[in-house]
Amino acid sequence: MVPQKHRVLLMRDDSKPLYRQIYEHFRAAIAHGQLRPGGRLPSVRRLAQEFATARGTVDAAYALLAGEGYIVARGPAGTIVSPELGGRAIARTAFRLRPTNRIELHAIERPRPFQLGLPSLDMFPRKIWSRLVARQARELSAAEMAYPDPTGFPPLREAVAAYLATSRGINCTWRQVLITNGYQGALGLIAEVLLNRNDKVWLEDPYYPVARTALETAGAKLVSIRVDPEGIRVADGVALARRARLAVVTPSHQSPLGVALSLPRRLALLSWANDTGAFVVEDDYDSEFRYVGRPLPALKSIDCNDRVLYAGSFSKVLFPSLRLGYLVLPKNLVADFARANLHRGYGAATLVQRIVAAFMIQGHFARHVKRMRDLYATRRKALSEALFAVFGERVEVDLKPGGMHLIVRYSNRADDVQLAKLAQDAGLGVEPLSRRAVAHPCERALLLGSQMSTRQTLLICADSSSRRSVHD
Amino acid sequence: MVPQKHRVLLMRDDSKPLYRQIYEHFRAAIAHGQLRPGGRLPSVRRLAQEFATARGTVDAAYALLAGEGYIVARGPAGTIVSPELGGRAIARTAFRLRPTNRIELHAIERPRPFQLGLPSLDMFPRKIWSRLVARQARELSAAEMAYPDPTGFPPLREAVAAYLATSRGINCTWRQVLITNGYQGALGLIAEVLLNRNDKVWLEDPYYPVARTALETAGAKLVSIRVDPEGIRVADGVALARRARLAVVTPSHQSPLGVALSLPRRLALLSWANDTGAFVVEDDYDSEFRYVGRPLPALKSIDCNDRVLYAGSFSKVLFPSLRLGYLVLPKNLVADFARANLHRGYGAATLVQRIVAAFMIQGHFARHVKRMRDLYATRRKALSEALFAVFGERVEVDLKPGGMHLIVRYSNRADDVQLAKLAQDAGLGVEPLSRRAVAHPCERALLLGSQMSTRQTLLICADSSSRRSVHD
Repeated sequence: MVPQKHRVLLMRDDSKPLYRQIYEHFRAAIAHGQLRPGGRLPSVRRLAQEFATARGTVDAAYALLAGEGYIVARGPAGTIVSPELGGRAIARTAFRLRPTNRIELHAIERPRPFQLGLPSLDMFPRKIWSRLVARQARELSAAEMAYPDPTGFPPLREAVAAYLATSRGINCTWRQVLITNGYQGALGLIAEVLLNRNDKVWLEDPYYPVARTALETAGAKLVSIRVDPEGIRVADGVALARRARLAVVTPSHQSPLGVALSLPRRLALLSWANDTGAFVVEDDYDSEFRYVGRPLPALKSIDCNDRVLYAGSFSKVLFPSLRLGYLVLPKNLVADFARANLHRGYGAATLVQRIVAAFMIQGHFARHVKRMRDLYATRRKALSEALFAVFGERVEVDLKPGGMHLIVRYSNRADDVQLAKLAQDAGLGVEPLSRRAVAHPCERALLLGSQMSTRQTLLICADSSSRRSVHD
Repeated sequence: MVPQKHRVLLMRDDSKPLYRQIYEHFRAAIAHGQLRPGGRLPSVRRLAQEFATARGTVDAAYALLAGEGYIVARGPAGTIVSPELGGRAIARTAFRLRPTNRIELHAIERPRPFQLGLPSLDMFPRKIWSRLVARQARELSAAEMAYPDPTGFPPLREAVAAYLATSRGINCTWRQVLITNGYQGALGLIAEVLLNRNDKVWLEDPYYPVARTALETAGAKLVSIRVDPEGIRVADGVALARRARLAVVTPSHQSPLGVALSLPRRLALLSWANDTGAFVVEDDYDSEFRYVGRPLPALKSIDCNDRVLYAGSFSKVLFPSLRLGYLVLPKNLVADFARANLHRGYGAATLVQRIVAAFMIQGHFARHVKRMRDLYATRRKALSEALFAVFGERVEVDLKPGGMHLIVRYSNRADDVQLAKLAQDAGLGVEPLSRRAVAHPCERALLLGSQMSTRQTLLICADSSSRRSVHD
């Protein structure tokens, strides 16, 4: 039953593991159109039999193909070539439109393995989401099609306030919640409203690149403050730039080091802001994903004098292409921000806000966060074990209690920028830690996103091991 | 069969037309919960019989109620109270969610009659749209859920380029098309990329308020250039501020005067830009709606030296709460704009862009524009006739060949700001023309959006007439 061509091509090639040969064969067959979208693949059992290999080997190859979108398992109906693939399918997905249109289709780059900051898109509850989208589209009223409230769709603002009250201990009214086009846009808005020319801003060192770029673009004068195991060194900030107008921090899980800001530092930061009239931006980008112990309450939850602007995003808990986030504003800044948002024409499509509001209000959001928390815990454990299995004592994985990435240290102190470059050239999303610091020495290590599927992770590790790892 | 309470309340009241009494009675009954969502109303025939009035009178009242969303005609099944209405329904629509959630629902203000710049939302092809949304949501791939292309979703950019080629004579590649969060955001971006501190910008006088606010917010130094029947007086601009960096104009249909920029002026404008290295922003906000003769080609279509940034928006051809627009950029500015968009975190949700792309590519967009063009022609004619029927020679309606609003002049030269204030207090979206000018004298007149339904328009005109018009 296995077509002749499969048999011919799958001659053993000792330079590559067999699963990899199977994978490459089918990928080429699909890309070259020998296997058409919707076409069936041989069953795992049959192919394993044919080649006298373990079913796990074929299983691994199929998992890799499925993970990259080439094939789809249809349960008892077998495995087929993904019907969504167009002709030229290599490492791309195509936007599917009616074949009659004359507009050329475009391929979109797919996310890279280990890419930072990406949620596990393969496990997003697509069915529930699609059903909800369809319903919200039908129910969008004429009033909701007209010009929207520039501060955001009120039901979404309420849903966010309710969520933050229970999950982050933040006590705010829905009127303090401003819906943004994501964190980057939020920082631009903050800079516009709060900063005067030449106002200084504290930024953690090492830093989160998105924050740095957004603040620089907005013209802020950045002061890099060192981060140690207790988080940002507030005393350094006071010594370097006491009159700064703003501090931008990641207290729950410092980006990228993963440390939490200690309570004494939190109090010192708030007290500095209160004494000098400065504000603090709390970027709480992934606090949902803490696997050990209880989540830390937000800095905002102990902010008695309303100095903290709390920033959250749906990019990591839902998905990035929503372009949706929020700010919780001090009460006396609400009017200024609403005006700035209106004048800049900011705002997300009401349909998108309505969908997310319904997703939250109907309880899907909390369930999704819980499922992802369990999944990410499993996946990071698997990745860390796989790294150990392949590299042994040569690497040390820093498993922080939370987060969506791992810091991988290695024994030979090779240049992490160069290592990451090699990994990137091989199509991986690995990043060098030392590049994240500007003003202070920063150790060499690699940053790896840990949200991809376990099976893919294992296979990639096994594969790079069999090809000789880059730092051998 | 007419319930007792209807009979009692509908005693003739000579100070108001009967249709108005019927309308007010049912509106109150719905608002106070005497008629519940889903409850049936008496048939038009029965109610007309009961009160020995023409069926047209009841019909008019029902049309007004339906237009405001209180009731829904169900064909042969009769007319029912809109099932979407919550308890407190007066002049509001509610966001419908599961009754079990504890989050308080919010009302959203509905658009006002004669409001400017609003498309006919009542005639939007909701069924086609909803079906398409559902499908696009299901088909959104994992890659499309990840971080999007900051310049926009490529298939939408292609669809826009193809549309502009056929409908506006603009010859551009899809790479020159940048998707924006609407015109306001686009102007902010333009200001950031093109303007240095103290750079001057020509703006038409009278002006489009959104453009003025966005440019002022971005720190541009505005120079107001007078508009006459041939459009912006380019020679005045050259005399006042030859070294300006930018001119922001509405050549197809000046906002608000409705005049088209003459060909000599177009050539003068382009030649000024070419000579001085300035750029021109062409805001082509409603060129789709031209009722007499052929549409004028865009200024961009005769821009041989790539000095024009063409701005379009989906707010008027689809609906405003999409927050979606586009810019066609000169080729040598594409990279700068892409970088600025990326650094500012701009960008619309990929789902929304995919929906609009599919709507265009599948031909719904062109059909919708054509249907709306016919509809708007009918509606503005009806409004203009109604105004004549009510006010006779006291008003003069300026019917330009295109556009979505009317300029209404009146004989007694009363203060248009005051008149508009009275109209606004009565819940109408009327605006005074004279407020739109800052540097040059501008006549007194009223601006009226002409996209609301004919029936509603007629009723409101009749109603204000029966209550004595404001300028009698």
